[in-house]
Amino acid sequence: MGAGSWGTVVAKLLRDAGCEVTLWGRRADVVDSVNERRENPDYLPGIELPEGLRATLDPAEALAGAEFVALAVPAQTLRENLSQWVPDLPPEAVMVSLMKGIELGTCRRMSEVIQEVADVPEERVAVFCGPNLAREIATGQPGAAVAGCVDEGNARRLQAATMTPYFRTYTSTDVIGCELGGAVKNVVALCVGMSVGLGFGDSTQALLITRGLAEITRLGAALGADEHTFAGLAGMGDLVGTCMSPLSRNRTFGENLGRGMTLEQVIAVTKQTAEGVKSCEAVLELARKHNVEMPITESVAGVLYHGMPIKEAGLSLISRSPKPERYGV
Amino acid sequence: MGAGSWGTVVAKLLRDAGCEVTLWGRRADVVDSVNERRENPDYLPGIELPEGLRATLDPAEALAGAEFVALAVPAQTLRENLSQWVPDLPPEAVMVSLMKGIELGTCRRMSEVIQEVADVPEERVAVFCGPNLAREIATGQPGAAVAGCVDEGNARRLQAATMTPYFRTYTSTDVIGCELGGAVKNVVALCVGMSVGLGFGDSTQALLITRGLAEITRLGAALGADEHTFAGLAGMGDLVGTCMSPLSRNRTFGENLGRGMTLEQVIAVTKQTAEGVKSCEAVLELARKHNVEMPITESVAGVLYHGMPIKEAGLSLISRSPKPERYGV
Repeated sequence: MGAGSWGTVVAKLLRDAGCEVTLWGRRADVVDSVNERRENPDYLPGIELPEGLRATLDPAEALAGAEFVALAVPAQTLRENLSQWVPDLPPEAVMVSLMKGIELGTCRRMSEVIQEVADVPEERVAVFCGPNLAREIATGQPGAAVAGCVDEGNARRLQAATMTPYFRTYTSTDVIGCELGGAVKNVVALCVGMSVGLGFGDSTQALLITRGLAEITRLGAALGADEHTFAGLAGMGDLVGTCMSPLSRNRTFGENLGRGMTLEQVIAVTKQTAEGVKSCEAVLELARKHNVEMPITESVAGVLYHGMPIKEAGLSLISRSPKPERYGV
Repeated sequence: MGAGSWGTVVAKLLRDAGCEVTLWGRRADVVDSVNERRENPDYLPGIELPEGLRATLDPAEALAGAEFVALAVPAQTLRENLSQWVPDLPPEAVMVSLMKGIELGTCRRMSEVIQEVADVPEERVAVFCGPNLAREIATGQPGAAVAGCVDEGNARRLQAATMTPYFRTYTSTDVIGCELGGAVKNVVALCVGMSVGLGFGDSTQALLITRGLAEITRLGAALGADEHTFAGLAGMGDLVGTCMSPLSRNRTFGENLGRGMTLEQVIAVTKQTAEGVKSCEAVLELARKHNVEMPITESVAGVLYHGMPIKEAGLSLISRSPKPERYGV
């Protein structure tokens, strides 16, 4: 449900793995193009979609008889979209979140919004997460993801539905852990970008990524996640993929700040939203609610919302009290 | 003990943190230059060393009265060097390994070699590891490391001796975990390089780094390490730093293979040794001894030692049987 770039790529992946797939899209031109030319020219120009992948404008048609309902709409529109589809959901379908993010206002994870809006038990809500750039997976480059569901059988069914000669899926029963990494990584990517903008090299980046993961793990532990999940594809994998890529919007946003541009100037030159700028606030709210120390997130918030000079934020990070490597979990 | 680039940088770090430091070097020109011009022109050209950092050619002079004896000689020469210094070791000194690697032939970690050769209990052997490039730390860029020692008090003393306004040290009591990451990371970096050489992007790199860490963690668990250590600076931190950097020798070596050069051609254009080419064998030997699955290391070994085509190695990785994300730990 959703014919953006990631939604379309997962539809392709499911089809390549042998599933029958119907892709719901909001825009008639996209739907027509998928059906008539096997291409999604706006989101995946030049990628040939597999034979037998159908698209429709009608949610009821897409949902009819589905074993899996994969949701790939923008995170902040999930509640509204899904509530319209509820009457057409097949009663036994497993709902799969392909989205990353935390709902602003409620601080809910995507799987929580699904459970609440669709009124399904957590056994029937899965997540599918990992360090995947849509375009790379679309061209058949090797990729991997975690199928997370508290019901291990459903996780394994989703795994079987997504394994192809170019893609590996692993199972996990830790949905919270799988979701949290993707929601917080962009804040760390902002910070890594700032350090690059200040002229620092690989040592500082590796330090920030590692300590960023440490604070995501502390938050996860407080929320009931299994901390091992954060050492996996949805945690460190997704974090590393985002922080490494010079194309990452969040990293570039931070880099511009680090180079000395004002927040207003950076926003002016940034075409698409840098997700971390918004999610930073939600993450911090969650952290405070659960009494979790998140110094990197705090520093990024200081720079973004409270006019803290970047160098001062950096100094405050490095001059914290001495600690064991692992604490607060 | 050792005036190469990392030994010199750690001497600087200790001095910047307020310690009295004597640096032992093998070469008279290097020692003279440190004493007379506060520079190590061969290993850290252009870096001004701190006042009061003395260098000497005489091991006994460097060792006299030392609280910490930090060892920074090439990994495969440790046994020979250290055995000559044993008579001059202060009886209560804490030995600190700054080295990465596994001793060929014995499969011993550096701290094990120290314990054996110097005949000191493990409580007095520490390691100092993390994702640090000597030159970056030398110029005062923010960095961090783990001081690992089974004696927590000694870990904390090493922490206190290395914290500066630009450097943070964390403590750990898991020496095995701290050492293993640095020893295996180069094998993963070879594999990441191969994927880059084949034209794959960030998704595949993030996948290989994450699953590389998973197999290092499995090996660590079999050797008695705490698996959480691998999510820290000495594990994922060092791995990410090495795999991310386009300057990494091991990554470049793999990249050349991925581009289609033969092993002989790559060795011919590689000036310094790519550590992973040697350590791959030692790691695999350890893995087999402990019955640990290390598919990435196996694939790299297949390419390096058994003439396996890279594409075939890649296919064998991606077509393994479906698995939970976490197994074998």
